[in-house]
Amino acid sequence: MCYLSEIHSPQDIKALSLAQLKDLCCEIRHSLIERVERTGGHIGSNLGIIEATVALHYVFDSPVDRIVYDVSHQSYVHKMLTGRYDAFMRGDTSGYTNPAESDHDAFMVGHTSTAVSLAVGLAKGRNLSGGTERIVAVLGDGSLSGGEAYEGLDNAATIAGNLIVVLNDNEMSIAENRGGIYAGLAALRATAGKAEPNLFRALGLDYIYVEEGNDVAALIAAFRQVKDYDHPVVVHIHTRKGKGLAWAEDNKERGHWISAASYTAPDAISTTALVADELLRHIQAGDNMAVLTAATPGAVGLTPQWRQAAGERYVDVGICEEHAVAMASGMAKRGVKAVWCVMSSFVQRVYDQLLQDLALNANPAVVLVYNGGFGKSDPTHAGLYDMSMMSNIPGLRCYAPTSRRRLIATLRLALRQTDYPVVIRVANDLPEGEDDRTEDWSIAQRGAEVALLGLGDMAAHAALAADALQEVGINATVVQCSLYSEADAAMLASLAATHRVFVTLESGILAGGFGQKVAAALADKDCKVLLRGAPKVFVDRQSAEQQMQSYRMTPVQIVEDVIRCLR
Amino acid sequence: MCYLSEIHSPQDIKALSLAQLKDLCCEIRHSLIERVERTGGHIGSNLGIIEATVALHYVFDSPVDRIVYDVSHQSYVHKMLTGRYDAFMRGDTSGYTNPAESDHDAFMVGHTSTAVSLAVGLAKGRNLSGGTERIVAVLGDGSLSGGEAYEGLDNAATIAGNLIVVLNDNEMSIAENRGGIYAGLAALRATAGKAEPNLFRALGLDYIYVEEGNDVAALIAAFRQVKDYDHPVVVHIHTRKGKGLAWAEDNKERGHWISAASYTAPDAISTTALVADELLRHIQAGDNMAVLTAATPGAVGLTPQWRQAAGERYVDVGICEEHAVAMASGMAKRGVKAVWCVMSSFVQRVYDQLLQDLALNANPAVVLVYNGGFGKSDPTHAGLYDMSMMSNIPGLRCYAPTSRRRLIATLRLALRQTDYPVVIRVANDLPEGEDDRTEDWSIAQRGAEVALLGLGDMAAHAALAADALQEVGINATVVQCSLYSEADAAMLASLAATHRVFVTLESGILAGGFGQKVAAALADKDCKVLLRGAPKVFVDRQSAEQQMQSYRMTPVQIVEDVIRCLR
Repeated sequence: MCYLSEIHSPQDIKALSLAQLKDLCCEIRHSLIERVERTGGHIGSNLGIIEATVALHYVFDSPVDRIVYDVSHQSYVHKMLTGRYDAFMRGDTSGYTNPAESDHDAFMVGHTSTAVSLAVGLAKGRNLSGGTERIVAVLGDGSLSGGEAYEGLDNAATIAGNLIVVLNDNEMSIAENRGGIYAGLAALRATAGKAEPNLFRALGLDYIYVEEGNDVAALIAAFRQVKDYDHPVVVHIHTRKGKGLAWAEDNKERGHWISAASYTAPDAISTTALVADELLRHIQAGDNMAVLTAATPGAVGLTPQWRQAAGERYVDVGICEEHAVAMASGMAKRGVKAVWCVMSSFVQRVYDQLLQDLALNANPAVVLVYNGGFGKSDPTHAGLYDMSMMSNIPGLRCYAPTSRRRLIATLRLALRQTDYPVVIRVANDLPEGEDDRTEDWSIAQRGAEVALLGLGDMAAHAALAADALQEVGINATVVQCSLYSEADAAMLASLAATHRVFVTLESGILAGGFGQKVAAALADKDCKVLLRGAPKVFVDRQSAEQQMQSYRMTPVQIVEDVIRCLR
Repeated sequence: MCYLSEIHSPQDIKALSLAQLKDLCCEIRHSLIERVERTGGHIGSNLGIIEATVALHYVFDSPVDRIVYDVSHQSYVHKMLTGRYDAFMRGDTSGYTNPAESDHDAFMVGHTSTAVSLAVGLAKGRNLSGGTERIVAVLGDGSLSGGEAYEGLDNAATIAGNLIVVLNDNEMSIAENRGGIYAGLAALRATAGKAEPNLFRALGLDYIYVEEGNDVAALIAAFRQVKDYDHPVVVHIHTRKGKGLAWAEDNKERGHWISAASYTAPDAISTTALVADELLRHIQAGDNMAVLTAATPGAVGLTPQWRQAAGERYVDVGICEEHAVAMASGMAKRGVKAVWCVMSSFVQRVYDQLLQDLALNANPAVVLVYNGGFGKSDPTHAGLYDMSMMSNIPGLRCYAPTSRRRLIATLRLALRQTDYPVVIRVANDLPEGEDDRTEDWSIAQRGAEVALLGLGDMAAHAALAADALQEVGINATVVQCSLYSEADAAMLASLAATHRVFVTLESGILAGGFGQKVAAALADKDCKVLLRGAPKVFVDRQSAEQQMQSYRMTPVQIVEDVIRCLR
């Protein structure tokens, strides 16, 4: 270890010889493995892009020249070379690019397929401002399946001046790549970039190919070649995901992201696994159904074994959530029960498709939303917005079941019915539950004066708050709320006759959410409502406990606020 | 006129000779022009696709075989051939496909670039169900710039069995086509489909080309060729937009859509024109700014003359809203004030991009939203959702100015500031106004007991309701609300001390909207809130008056409800 601690900015690598650059890459590789094995993170893509990152910073002059990473989960090496080596090794950097950390990061990015569009904006801004800097977008082959990447590439062709798109082709998305473009990429790799049809040329772009995408000399030569191009160009580099870590090279999906100090899959009895088992049971029982993912099967519990067992009834469409919704709607129209499994943060991509392609057509597809709720994450991956977004789309019936048993019962109901699309939030943490009821809202405990309404995973928390109120002599009503697309106006009106204070609890933003629907339903009644959930601000890596504390959601805080309100 | 009145289903055209089919096309052309000149509608695309529609129904067996139209604004001919000729001529059909009208319409569709994905869903559903029907998706060259179309085509390549994508290439989007793919399409047209690189082959699809896209015999031959293909294929047909109507052939943009019984542009002093003038003034004054559209410059008042005057500071990105937002964010990052003009209905495409690419990065781009509010439209094009959607995205500052003068003042403020992204709703109908204030909320009239809060174009309506209340002896406070991303909690708390009833008025859905934010802010106060706006249901071609009547928003209804509430 002799270089990294001396590199405080990309300027410090420009003086190194080629041999030294290779040593630097080796050192980066060891540091990466050491750090990510300790703290978790995206290992495979970063190991694959070490040489390219070094070469980019060797050839270009960041931050005047701009390097924009797609998703930016592969920006660890970039961080090590831009004054953040120590912070990175301590685990104090974000997992994505972040302008608040460094001027070398142009954008905070976490969702896929946006880098080319952002870079097109920078390039057009440069042109209008009379600038001369180079603009580089770096995106992976997986991101290339997203429509926004295509829109960006199509528009890149209209830009005057320098604009370089580095396509980091490691032959993998998070899982295997899916879609017609990948045969074309394989043909390009097999022919050193000479095969036709060439997708990038079809999009109107210049193109060069670099077979040795993990050879820093070859990369430097390629980047030097295009550095002063006066027009957009795609530099297709062939890299090896997980390079230098044998098990990650062999199992690229497992090596995409690892948890802190562990290589094991999530707990086998997670709600995610519970739902995966239930889905497979239906498939194996012969139900005419299909399960779709948009490139994240592992994150929603669909292991390679599961996928093999599901056979043709499992479809991974690649990173393209918009297509997934429209395809699910089409399948549902044809009589196949389509179930799309998606992470809370990524469902944000499809407000319009849920509204137009699905809900407006009342096709009975099912959307299962994972990882929503409080919990430590970068601001780009927060699970706080899904319920607010979807609860305001007409024609969607949206559930956040309050227990594991009710989750499965709700899923069965959704699979059975054929009248409308259903959204179900699969919370990470739910109690087992005592019944299989699928009522929208149910009264778990009858009290007076104070009613606690807990939505989804907050129902169990409402019960804790009720216990705390009991200790100060307040016998509260507890309502377990599973449906979040509507407030139960009849139940609220009935409760309003005997309750003065309502407390709503939800694990998402208040704006546009559950509590506001309750407040609106009670707005002409003589009672007060305390709304508890997340404010409409971005949250950076706070634990669930920190969040709930600062949103005044602990049982002690709820007791304090209820007493104040009752006075 | 001898065929159309005898055609009650596509079966009725299968017995016609080629000569008779040509006569039928001629008759359709005359009927189309007669009807659309009378009632308004999309004329150009329908004139161009007459022969293709006749050929599709001649070769395929709808509704068993499925024909899915992208956007479906070009489905007029399809409607005439599927039992809806009389209804179409009367103006009683929707402007888009609608399963409630006919089994021949698989989906209600109105936004672009979704047809291939929907068709992929139908095809996969067929495969899983053991069906044998053919699936046809029809999309225009303009729709091809949308990322969802690319996602669909990329996934189409993975589908087993029959799947036919008819690319209706009339060399036009709504305005001119923009982007790198269009040079490739031109090369294909110039070489009878032989040029490389071929975008569709690059996406892994089979491909055939038909130069004579307005020759019914050539189209029948092509469709017969692919009818029983066992794999996906793109049939690229070259058609003439506006064919048969001289002025529409000559001016394809003007011929895209026409108003009822008129060929004139919208009123020159519309709010749209007002804003366009203001934007051009800033450009001509040398501001470092740019104005973007996603293929709808005409609908947002950017006439060909305007575009010419704006020069390089006007960018049409094609039909790709996602790219538009990310590009605007990139331009703003580079110091150029980017202004994106978008229709209310189409801003739905970019919940995630507004949140991640723009708001999370706090880049000071401006989004101008047009045609939001009440007013007759198909359910696919309703302007009811924009405020609910955007008001719940952190980091966006969202305005709905209450007068024309305040609209311009707010726009100037947005152009001047560099701290955050701003959304401004450009309502169709606003009073001139008395001041240029840009306060978030302002008290226009001070009363007691009752406060009327009018958002954006509903502020003038709040004043009318106050007048009606005055007549029954109630002196109401009127608040003109321009900001809708937050409720003014301080003002509400202050008013709550002296007011018992609040009425909120908004021209959008209540769910997730303005009134619910007011109700939440007042939830711990001793007052009641009446929320008035649209319920969370799809609305089909109701006038603004009909909508407001059924939502109890007329002054008389508001007086009734306020009196009931005060008792």
